Order: sequence, then C-alpha cells, then structure tokens
Amino acid sequence: MQQTHTLPLATRATDLVGSMIDSSTSLLAQQTHDIVRFAMGSPAPEAVPTEALAEIGRRVFGPGEASAYDYAATEGDPALRDALLAELDGTTDATSPERLTITSGGMQGLDLTFKIFTDPGDLVVVESPTYTNGSATALSYQAELLEVPVDHEGLQVDRMEEMVGDGRKPKVIYTIPTFQNPSGASMSLDRRRRLLDLADRWGSLVIDDDPYGMLRFAGDAMPSLHELADGNPLVLSVRTFSKIIAPGLRVGWVDAAPELQQLLISAKQAMDTCTNLPMQRLVGGFLADGHLREHVTTQQAVYRERKVAMQDALTEHFDGGARWTDPEGGFFLWVTFGSEVDTEALFEVALAEGVAFIPGNAFSPSKHFPNALRVCFAATTPDRIREGIGRLRRAVDKVSA
Amino acid sequence: MQQTHTLPLATRATDLVGSMIDSSTSLLAQQTHDIVRFAMGSPAPEAVPTEALAEIGRRVFGPGEASAYDYAATEGDPALRDALLAELDGTTDATSPERLTITSGGMQGLDLTFKIFTDPGDLVVVESPTYTNGSATALSYQAELLEVPVDHEGLQVDRMEEMVGDGRKPKVIYTIPTFQNPSGASMSLDRRRRLLDLADRWGSLVIDDDPYGMLRFAGDAMPSLHELADGNPLVLSVRTFSKIIAPGLRVGWVDAAPELQQLLISAKQAMDTCTNLPMQRLVGGFLADGHLREHVTTQQAVYRERKVAMQDALTEHFDGGARWTDPEGGFFLWVTFGSEVDTEALFEVALAEGVAFIPGNAFSPSKHFPNALRVCFAATTPDRIREGIGRLRRAVDKVSA
Repeated sequence: MQQTHTLPLATRATDLVGSMIDSSTSLLAQQTHDIVRFAMGSPAPEAVPTEALAEIGRRVFGPGEASAYDYAATEGDPALRDALLAELDGTTDATSPERLTITSGGMQGLDLTFKIFTDPGDLVVVESPTYTNGSATALSYQAELLEVPVDHEGLQVDRMEEMVGDGRKPKVIYTIPTFQNPSGASMSLDRRRRLLDLADRWGSLVIDDDPYGMLRFAGDAMPSLHELADGNPLVLSVRTFSKIIAPGLRVGWVDAAPELQQLLISAKQAMDTCTNLPMQRLVGGFLADGHLREHVTTQQAVYRERKVAMQDALTEHFDGGARWTDPEGGFFLWVTFGSEVDTEALFEVALAEGVAFIPGNAFSPSKHFPNALRVCFAATTPDRIREGIGRLRRAVDKVSA
Repeated sequence: MQQTHTLPLATRATDLVGSMIDSSTSLLAQQTHDIVRFAMGSPAPEAVPTEALAEIGRRVFGPGEASAYDYAATEGDPALRDALLAELDGTTDATSPERLTITSGGMQGLDLTFKIFTDPGDLVVVESPTYTNGSATALSYQAELLEVPVDHEGLQVDRMEEMVGDGRKPKVIYTIPTFQNPSGASMSLDRRRRLLDLADRWGSLVIDDDPYGMLRFAGDAMPSLHELADGNPLVLSVRTFSKIIAPGLRVGWVDAAPELQQLLISAKQAMDTCTNLPMQRLVGGFLADGHLREHVTTQQAVYRERKVAMQDALTEHFDGGARWTDPEGGFFLWVTFGSEVDTEALFEVALAEGVAFIPGNAFSPSKHFPNALRVCFAATTPDRIREGIGRLRRAVDKVSA
C-alpha cells in the first residue's frame, strides 16, 4: 500500500519560489513563431567568438589533453588566473593573485558571498529594482531584504540612510553600481563615496556585482567601489565573462580581500568542487591570445548603436506614453509606462504579437514595478529592434483597449 | 587612517573549514618530484576519451554554434536529458524526464539537496567514513551529523537504529551505498531494504550518492535504493559523469521525485543559474553517439586489473600489518593499519618517498580513522601501483622507526 509522504523541507525552501524571469523564459522557450527577443540578458549570437574559441579549444582541450578534463584547483586554473590578472593590470579593475577566486559564473560569486555572510534574519539592502537571482540568493539564506530605490544616479544612498535610520544595520549591501540590471543606471561618484562611508560606519559588507562594467559605450570610466574603498576588506566585486564572452561558459570571478579566499574556497568545495576546467582553459586561452580587448571594443560600438536604435524606436512609438533610461553601457533599458499598463498582463499579449521582454515586477521581491519592463537591446540587430518595438506598441494598444 | 575591520561572517562560516583533502591536495600540487598519485578520485588520464570528445566538440560547439554558448535551461539541456534517459532506459537506473535535473557535478546535487532539506540543527546521518565534501555540505547548512559506522556490507543499519533510538529522528540519511567512497563497500540488499523501512518510518530523506555505480567490475548488479523505494519521493539519487567520463566537465544529475524538480530548479538558479552548456552538449553528444557503454565496459576491465594489482602489492608489502577492503567496483581501497601508524604523520613522509594518498581522518568529521588511509587504484598503471605501494612500505617503516 502506497502511503502519502510529507516532504520534510527546510524552512528556506518556501523562499525558493520560481522567479518571474524563470516563468517568463519558460513560456518563451515554448513559442515557435517569430519573436523579437528582448527578454534574456545574453550577448548577441553573432557576438560570440565561436571561431576563436574553436581554435583555442583544439589547442587547450584537444586530443591528448586529458589534464584539461581533470578536477581544477578550487580557486581556479592557474593559467586563467594569470591571464586575467594580466588583462586587468593597468585598468581601474587591477587586482592581485591572492584576491582572485574563479567561480561558476557571477551567480556563484553571489551564492558564495551570501552563504559566507548571511545568517537567517540578517538585513540585506538590495536595489529596487534589482537583479532577481541576486535577491533570490539572499532570500535562500533567509535574509530579510530592504529594497532601496534606484534613480538615474543609481542606488539612492540618502534614502538608504533614512530607511535604515536608528534601526538594525544591514549585514550586506548588494549593489550593481555600473550599468545596473535592470535599470541601466550607474551610481554617481558622490554616491559611491557616501555608500562606502555608510557601509564602513555600519560594518556592512558591500557586494559590487559588476557583470557589465567592461561594456561602457559612453561617458567616462568611474572608479570602482573597490578602488575607492581604501583597503576595506568588506568591499568585494563579483565579476563574470558571461556578458563579455558568453554566458554558457559559466566562468566568473570574485575579487575579494585575501583573508576571505580560504572561506571562499571552502564554501565552493561544498558547492561544486571546482569550476569546469575545459571552459577555464578556453577563457584563459582567449585572454592570453589577446582577444578580449579587441572583442570588447567591437561590442561596445555594436551595443551603442543598438541602444540608440531602441531609444529612437521607443520615441517613435511611445513618446509621451512612457519613459526610459539612458545607460552609458551594459545591455538594458528600463521602460516605465503610465500606470494603466500592467506589464505582467502585457507579457502574454506581447508574446502573441511576437516580442518578448521581462515584466518589471520580476525585479522586485515586493513587486514595486507593475507598470515597468526591462528590454535587452544587446542581442538584436537595429532592424529587429525597430520591428520589436513596433510589435510592443501594438501589444500595449491591445491591452489598453 | 586605515581602521581595522571585523568581518561580519555568518555563523555557518565557522563550519566551512578547509577539508584535509584540500590541504593534502594543495601540498601535493606543490611537489615537483616523481610521485605515484593514489590521492585524487580521478579517472586515469588515458581513460579520458579526448579524441572522441574533440570530434564531438567540433560538431556541437564549433564555429557558428553560438547557441551552445548561451544560457542553458536550468533543469538541463534537452539534448543531454534525452540522451541520458535513453542511456539509462532498460537498466536498473531507468528514470523519466520529469525526475531528471542536470547539475554542475554530483557535488552540486548534494548542495541542492541539503539546501532544500536542511535547517540549522537538523540531524543528518552520514557514513563513517564518508565522502568529505558531502558531510561538509551538510555542515555548511549547520546540520548536526550522526556518524554511523560502515563495514564490508556498507552502512550498519542496525547500528543506526540503535544510535537514533528513541531520540530525534534524522531529517536526512546521506549514504553512498554502491562502491562507497572511501571504503569501497557496497550495501547489502538486506540492509538497503532495512534502511528504506527505517527512513520511511522516520520520514527521513534518503540521499543515494552514486558516482561509481556504473563502474562494477565484479559481483552482480544490485537494485538501487530508488528501485526498492516503491515510489517514496523521499529517496533520491545524486549522479555524475565525473568518474565515467571526466571530472573537469562538472556535469552530473539528480534523479528525484517530480514534485521536487521546481524546488531544485529554483535553488539552482540562485546557485549558478545553469550548468555550463558546451560541456552539456559535449556529454550529450558522447551519449547520443553511443560511446558511453563501450567506454565504461573498457574501463571496468582496466579498473579490475588495477584493483587486483594493488591488493597483490599490499599483500606483498603489508601482509599481517594492515587490512584492506575488496570492492566490486569504483576507485578505492581503504587500508587500515595497526594503530601504531598515524596516517596524518605518514602523509608527508610518504610524499617525500614519492607516493600520495588521503589520510583516513579526512573522511570523518570526528576524525575516527587516524590509522587508516584511502588509495585510488583507478588512475595509475599496475607497474606504478606496485612501485607506489613499495614506496608506501618504506614510508611506513620510516614513521614506525
């Protein structure tokens, strides 16, 4: 006789709700008709350097190269770490070997950090809107989130100070200061300094989640939080090759104080032992061969053109009916409609019209953005961008009718 | 003025101590002289099918195949899941699509499971000795471990029942029932049944960690716990391609009740988003091309020969002074000396003699095995195995002198 079993789930399991990005992309994956895809934050297919990668692959994990298929050192393959250090040398992101830990994408950098620093009930500041899976990771360790609004200069640091007030101080401040996901905003220099002062006073860890920083196509480079932090070990960066080479590699890095590295290694061993070695060797080869700088320069120009194309198309179709951001880099525009447009309801109608985006509420655990949406301009040609925004207009007309 | 910063670590961070395997392998990595490597649980370099993988790689992620570098579905690439289902069909491991979630190696299967099921203070049964990083993952979620001894028939289930007694019941029973790491023991059919009965009565989750199950080289196949569990959703398997193809791929799978899949997907999204896609496509191609069955058959014969070579060498050098296990598959022998040999002290002496192993205490959070060690026979030729065991004899003589 088959009895009914109760699943003895952990308390945190109730916080592991599937994100709206997940359900949106699942629905998207089932579609077979022509869709202009503004949803995912992937580079354009034509931006993936498959020729160079194939050539390097033949060399680094080709016939006879069995060692490329063995376990990697948990902190990362020495060849990749060396190549990355050389790549960053002389830039505002320059770092040192003992600060560098290779991760399985930027996402694992966040998982490692929240795992090491977050106890159940700890207060974690997140931006509002923010990267869904970033806040999801904090929630998976049962953190309590404080959602602080973002404007065109990034996290509203004064607002954060007011909201924290005399109450409990945040254990962690999770920010995407450069070309923020989803808003595209970059934190001003003044706010960066002010954020670091407050974090220092509060004893908070600052996570600088920076997947897009190398993809600046306008404005001047800004010092990173790490650079401004004057050696404070409580400021760390989470970086990735996902947006500058390809997301499927799942290769990223954490740049953190040396005293954190053994903790990162121990935590990572109990997560996935090490990051897959063939892809580490592939990225290491791509860097060592000097491809990255040129590749990024090319992409910057492509993304600038696409951003302008999307803004122009939005002006053509939505002037007066919506507003959108003007990022200096990265992948995204954040579009806010008059409050009558419910972007969750819009999503399915837009899919039927042949255009996909991510609804604004996916970027806020408290669902503060029912009338906003995120569009990725990076993965689509200007012609397709114009077509897609036209389709979005028709979808908005339908739901408004 | 640089002030001192206190790291606001999570409580669990103190449980994230670097394992002894980690420190042993770090030390090993620094050696430059000739060493016979019995330490790591990697397949032999010559067992890695680099020719076939290179050929498949050219096809599945070669020039123009940008889609192979995009984000993968969190539950796994459809091509790999289909190929794996076909591969397992008709075997005692046969499963169904909705039970299958691709993971970043078997390790992530353990991380996912403990994350979903373990609250701080929950009781988790682990085998003694056990796989270090398995118990480390449970500890990273602040589980309390109950170490139950293993003998030549695997986990001593009667002992587990006695130890639990009238007290708190385990939330999770973590077992490696087939060719156990590190002991090599396989759980008898009678104990498998008894374990499932107790787990069912207690409402405990059973994790069947099975990296080696396909590598049987003696004896008859045994039904898996899942097969014996009669649909109990609290019995799941954690599997991997690490030992049957190559560990650097970091591709594994969890075979679990369909009602757990959405939880696994949500938890994995907040860990690493998805498993790297090029390696999923590579493994999928290796399976779809029909390579795995033949590859595993070849390896079984190789490993059988090596196990015998190691046992013969042990008999030659240690007859009467130590005892060792006789596994029917997998990678490891577990050697227990008379209590006068401290294998942690032995480790450095052996390294100087030119042979590496893992000390027994690395496999027990309470360090119950000071006079035991684990040797991997899989990665070394019979000649080198004989040489290595001879060196081990000399090292033992030195520390005993």
